[in-house]
Amino acid sequence: MRSDSEFDLIARYFSWPAPAGMLGVGDDCALLPVSHGFQMAVSSDMLVEGQHFFADVDPADLGYKALAVNLSDLAAMGARPVACTLALSIPRIDHDWLKAFSEGFQTLSRQAQCPLVGGDTTRNPAGVVISVTVMGEVRRNHALRRDAAKVGDDIWVTGHLGSAELALRMLQGRLPADAARLAAARPVLERPWPRLRFGQRLAGMAHAALDISDGLLQDLGHILRASQCGADLTFDRIPAAPVLDGLDEALRRDMILAGGDCYELCFTASPKRREQIQATARLLDVPVSRIGVVVRGDALRVLDADGNPLPHGPGGYDHFRAAGTP
Amino acid sequence: MRSDSEFDLIARYFSWPAPAGMLGVGDDCALLPVSHGFQMAVSSDMLVEGQHFFADVDPADLGYKALAVNLSDLAAMGARPVACTLALSIPRIDHDWLKAFSEGFQTLSRQAQCPLVGGDTTRNPAGVVISVTVMGEVRRNHALRRDAAKVGDDIWVTGHLGSAELALRMLQGRLPADAARLAAARPVLERPWPRLRFGQRLAGMAHAALDISDGLLQDLGHILRASQCGADLTFDRIPAAPVLDGLDEALRRDMILAGGDCYELCFTASPKRREQIQATARLLDVPVSRIGVVVRGDALRVLDADGNPLPHGPGGYDHFRAAGTP
Repeated sequence: MRSDSEFDLIARYFSWPAPAGMLGVGDDCALLPVSHGFQMAVSSDMLVEGQHFFADVDPADLGYKALAVNLSDLAAMGARPVACTLALSIPRIDHDWLKAFSEGFQTLSRQAQCPLVGGDTTRNPAGVVISVTVMGEVRRNHALRRDAAKVGDDIWVTGHLGSAELALRMLQGRLPADAARLAAARPVLERPWPRLRFGQRLAGMAHAALDISDGLLQDLGHILRASQCGADLTFDRIPAAPVLDGLDEALRRDMILAGGDCYELCFTASPKRREQIQATARLLDVPVSRIGVVVRGDALRVLDADGNPLPHGPGGYDHFRAAGTP
Repeated sequence: MRSDSEFDLIARYFSWPAPAGMLGVGDDCALLPVSHGFQMAVSSDMLVEGQHFFADVDPADLGYKALAVNLSDLAAMGARPVACTLALSIPRIDHDWLKAFSEGFQTLSRQAQCPLVGGDTTRNPAGVVISVTVMGEVRRNHALRRDAAKVGDDIWVTGHLGSAELALRMLQGRLPADAARLAAARPVLERPWPRLRFGQRLAGMAHAALDISDGLLQDLGHILRASQCGADLTFDRIPAAPVLDGLDEALRRDMILAGGDCYELCFTASPKRREQIQATARLLDVPVSRIGVVVRGDALRVLDADGNPLPHGPGGYDHFRAAGTP
């Protein structure tokens, strides 16, 4: 009866059947089951056109990534995804755009077993704004909190760092485009895979964890401040993305240490857990690297092969400082 | 160290201590307790400057209302608030604005015992966009779902209808301003009180419920479609706000039946529950009116005192139809 209304948009693009035991899109609220002995982990993000993504971004990539960045927060908490909600404002009803956006979102929603259970679509002449909230569950007292690092802990990181930052700078024209490098780096920027299964295995095994979406040094800094300790990292142990090979060394270092939009996990754990962590990483096919150690004090030092501190800035991404950086 | 950064804004304006047993602002995710035998109810909304509120709105009212409209969804589900998250994008850092916004938000957050546990602030040159997600808990199988109305149910509504719509039309210049009426109606528009306690009492007592934020007829229509039944309403039983007295009758009727931004509850219940509902309403000092009955079929009829149908349009608010209507 009411074509192209808010209700039709939700019904048409965002109403996938909710799993058994769950009430999904269509009522005032979604209803979620929570297991006894578990806590619910919740995180909300907002992505703004022109700030976090380009107006001409592939809408399927955007839909995927809007969910991915939030799922990464669940991964960093050690939580299993339960469900998500999406609030979306758009300048006009563009069915091709909506179809692609919802397909990208749904692709990851299925892969991560994180059904969309609530939606709000609204008009915004100024541009697209997306807010996703994810909910997961984690066994009580097992969550990977940022204030849980202990002096003597190993510091680990998953994956290889710097690809997303490289792709971003090339797309923004801040670095000369290089077709081969961009082709290799771009998927990491556009379709990051949140480390959900590995994060869940770390719960109860590791101490503190974060994703390093604001850059390794800045996010590790959050752990250190919250846990009231310092860290010594060995630069040569930090796993650089191969696509950075051959770049100017200062640039390469900056992208590894401060590159944003990176959805790998940085975590700390007792040295007694080394074998268990390596075995879990092998089982799940997740590369892990032991890059440093938690120390007393409040300094975060990056050391060269001889143990001498390398100079580095505070690094990382800040939405109110780096305006225009998606 | 980093003044006016995203982290400072959250720490400065949106980090209130979380209650015991909860992890609040500052980690990847908040952690919430959920009681055994309960489900979690979740709802997300998005409010866009120029669409849902005026750019010059009092930021304290805006902060209050951004939470109120979401809490009303919990009320309509019969859920008790547990916590909320806020994603906020703003064109620039205006400390007076942020202080007032956060105070308005916090006022209701405290009154409703719904602590803010997660925040995301980001820059948006195009204007303010707010997305709030509320989480509550409701005993399993007790939630007030819109598909639960039964033929023969009474139809009830809380409060008195039409004030918010009147205030809105005057503020938009769609109706001539009338200082006395506006002064009486405006608080209902700007500081609506979600029917949380009454909604919680209704869980397990009523069948279906909704808030009528899109207008009585449109929202009751959602219940009827989801429940596959119709309704006969008696117009004279629908409680009109006294501030509408003396207005043109067609205008008055439209504001009562289709006026939006109304956070009263419409619910259906077995006639056997009449006394219990009246007693609960008296206990909580909530006005309730029995306005009609659920019938077979799919028609929603509004009857005059003689039982003859009154003409009415589909009514209610649609974000993609009524562009520019806050």
